[in-house]
Amino acid sequence: MHNVGIVGAGIAGLHLALYLQKQGIDAVLYTDREPGAYRDARLLNTVAHHSTTLARETALGVNHWTDPDQHYYYHDHWLNVPEPGPLNFAGSFEKPSRALDYRIYLPRLMEDFVERGGKIEFRRIEEKDIQPLVDRHDLLAVAVGKGPMGAMFEHDPEETPFKAPQRQLCVGLYSGVSNTDPMNVTMSITPGVGELICIPTITFDGMGHALLMENLPDGPMTHLARESYDADPKAFLQAVLDDLEQYHPGIYNRIEASRFDLCQSQDILQGGVVPTVRKPAVKFDNGKYALAIGDVHCTVDPVNGQGANISSYSAFVVGEEIARAPVLDGRFIERVENRRRDRVLGAARWTNLMMQPPSQEFQMLLGAMSQNRALCDEFTQNFNAPEDQWEHLSSPQRIRHWIGAKTPMAAE
Amino acid sequence: MHNVGIVGAGIAGLHLALYLQKQGIDAVLYTDREPGAYRDARLLNTVAHHSTTLARETALGVNHWTDPDQHYYYHDHWLNVPEPGPLNFAGSFEKPSRALDYRIYLPRLMEDFVERGGKIEFRRIEEKDIQPLVDRHDLLAVAVGKGPMGAMFEHDPEETPFKAPQRQLCVGLYSGVSNTDPMNVTMSITPGVGELICIPTITFDGMGHALLMENLPDGPMTHLARESYDADPKAFLQAVLDDLEQYHPGIYNRIEASRFDLCQSQDILQGGVVPTVRKPAVKFDNGKYALAIGDVHCTVDPVNGQGANISSYSAFVVGEEIARAPVLDGRFIERVENRRRDRVLGAARWTNLMMQPPSQEFQMLLGAMSQNRALCDEFTQNFNAPEDQWEHLSSPQRIRHWIGAKTPMAAE
Repeated sequence: MHNVGIVGAGIAGLHLALYLQKQGIDAVLYTDREPGAYRDARLLNTVAHHSTTLARETALGVNHWTDPDQHYYYHDHWLNVPEPGPLNFAGSFEKPSRALDYRIYLPRLMEDFVERGGKIEFRRIEEKDIQPLVDRHDLLAVAVGKGPMGAMFEHDPEETPFKAPQRQLCVGLYSGVSNTDPMNVTMSITPGVGELICIPTITFDGMGHALLMENLPDGPMTHLARESYDADPKAFLQAVLDDLEQYHPGIYNRIEASRFDLCQSQDILQGGVVPTVRKPAVKFDNGKYALAIGDVHCTVDPVNGQGANISSYSAFVVGEEIARAPVLDGRFIERVENRRRDRVLGAARWTNLMMQPPSQEFQMLLGAMSQNRALCDEFTQNFNAPEDQWEHLSSPQRIRHWIGAKTPMAAE
Repeated sequence: MHNVGIVGAGIAGLHLALYLQKQGIDAVLYTDREPGAYRDARLLNTVAHHSTTLARETALGVNHWTDPDQHYYYHDHWLNVPEPGPLNFAGSFEKPSRALDYRIYLPRLMEDFVERGGKIEFRRIEEKDIQPLVDRHDLLAVAVGKGPMGAMFEHDPEETPFKAPQRQLCVGLYSGVSNTDPMNVTMSITPGVGELICIPTITFDGMGHALLMENLPDGPMTHLARESYDADPKAFLQAVLDDLEQYHPGIYNRIEASRFDLCQSQDILQGGVVPTVRKPAVKFDNGKYALAIGDVHCTVDPVNGQGANISSYSAFVVGEEIARAPVLDGRFIERVENRRRDRVLGAARWTNLMMQPPSQEFQMLLGAMSQNRALCDEFTQNFNAPEDQWEHLSSPQRIRHWIGAKTPMAAE
């Protein structure tokens, strides 16, 4: 019987821990944050779970948020181009998605794990702790990037094209944004400025909205990554409203200014992400392995909402392979990589493509999506399967082919 | 619509050509040997098709050899160890396998392809022909190792552990070997000497037997790779009989010496194979690719009968991916590799393991197989799925685990 140590209690670590628990495989989860410490913590992220991830939660028996009114059903797009003027178009999922504050989600899954007999050790892992952990477990699954364990995994230069963040993020959970019926995620794209993603999110106080501002570093909204809410809340909110009015009017028009505020003062996160893929595993002198999962393995910019979903996917692949492997050795690592690599890299490559100035073909694709619901639905549904999205986006030629394949014949 | 050039008309090239033809995809097959030139050619190889390959033949509509009496149903093993004396044990396939002289098989499949409207150009491909072929086709599938096209593909050093043949082969199609009922392939293993594989084979004159002598280069039978049948047939046959009597008595005992001869004087092949894995693809200046299939991609020693089977498998993967790919580009190549790599490398690694002195654990496995029919059946069935075999054989620890998992509890 294998004995697995899981370092880090984000979605990757928790989904793996719960998966192994379900299979009756021993696992110890290590984290330095107790469930009670989440309530007052700063906003962790803004995360959407697509239907493939919700299905995994159901399989684990941890899908506690099933109210259809708290799910969203389609993507609404605003393409704010001067000529021919703003385009507004939608694409539907086959099954709905759901966004939830991780300060609710993570402690609840930790409680599920413990209630079912799971072991969590609450402590920070230092350099000196690594060897005892290696000795204690047959495999270490590393799901936390900070600290000495995450640092063991080398970058994969082929899949890591950027050395710096490609967007300056200003992310917050807000009240005062009106819902659509049914709910949607709205993506507002403004050339020269960046993207604004508006995500209806289950918060501590019912439904709120995450505003994920993905600002180009040299664009007019980049300053929002540096403005302080705490120093002057009203000035901060006014600066956001001013920018949204000018650059993302489709979302601005849904805001009731008098109610517009962060849900809580700590519900804001500012900064940037360097998209990074790391080598999947480290071998120790005694022949045992540490395996990277979640953000340690692949950190993506949040613009496409892929991070949590590929982390959960990777956790399941790793769990299934642990369950079937006679030995947690190099061949086990190879099988894990063979299985998860295409989807994880699909998400990374697609997201990295969105960070770059759009090719002429990608602009054509957006134009075609605005006129062709079937094409836009497929683009939307592929948020569940980034490797399928990458099939269509990996070259200008493929984008042209996709548009052509989805375009009714002129003769018809 | 893609347009594919296939260079080489072995099983990989033919199965790919027939697959694409079935999908209505244009393909031109290039080979320098006309169907009529096979009848009097020297023996090409000794090849067994396992049931997975037979199923692909059925799918292609080219399985013309379906007589159950011309199939074989199990592996019989002779392990000729001095202590405790020779072990003889069998393992069954779930579905039967079949061996057929490729001088019958290949021209028949070429005829099938042509009768259904396929184009074959009979010519030798020289250096100067490459660029015109690249210009003519969207993709070149290269299925012939000799000549300038095969030479384009670099070795993969990680998967190519040997620089020289590990066995000196003496391979022939013989009369005078008795059949078992039902038929089997008999594998006789003699430490310090090598392996002898006896394969009931459909020949130009009904059933005969391939004797595949896999002789250790420094062993007592290595000289058979250099003895000339033509110079003195009787002396050659007597040398074979003498060696078989001494080193492979289980097969020797099935030989009627007075009828023992090559089926035809050209039914012999001597030499050795350097097991080699090559990089899967070459990119040309214009962005098009050549993709290695069959032996060009992966050459294995014939001891495990894997070469033709992984070639057919690879042809189907490539055909399926061509059929679904919008563009035959780098992403197409990546998908092909993602899908075929584990099985092809499983066959290569397992076969390379058999070339090396057996570990203590592998000797234990053979001993356990001699006592445990279920274990031996699984080992035998895995000739259809070399990646599954490799799951059990890739380390001594995994071999021990496999034996343990198949061993009834002492308490039972």
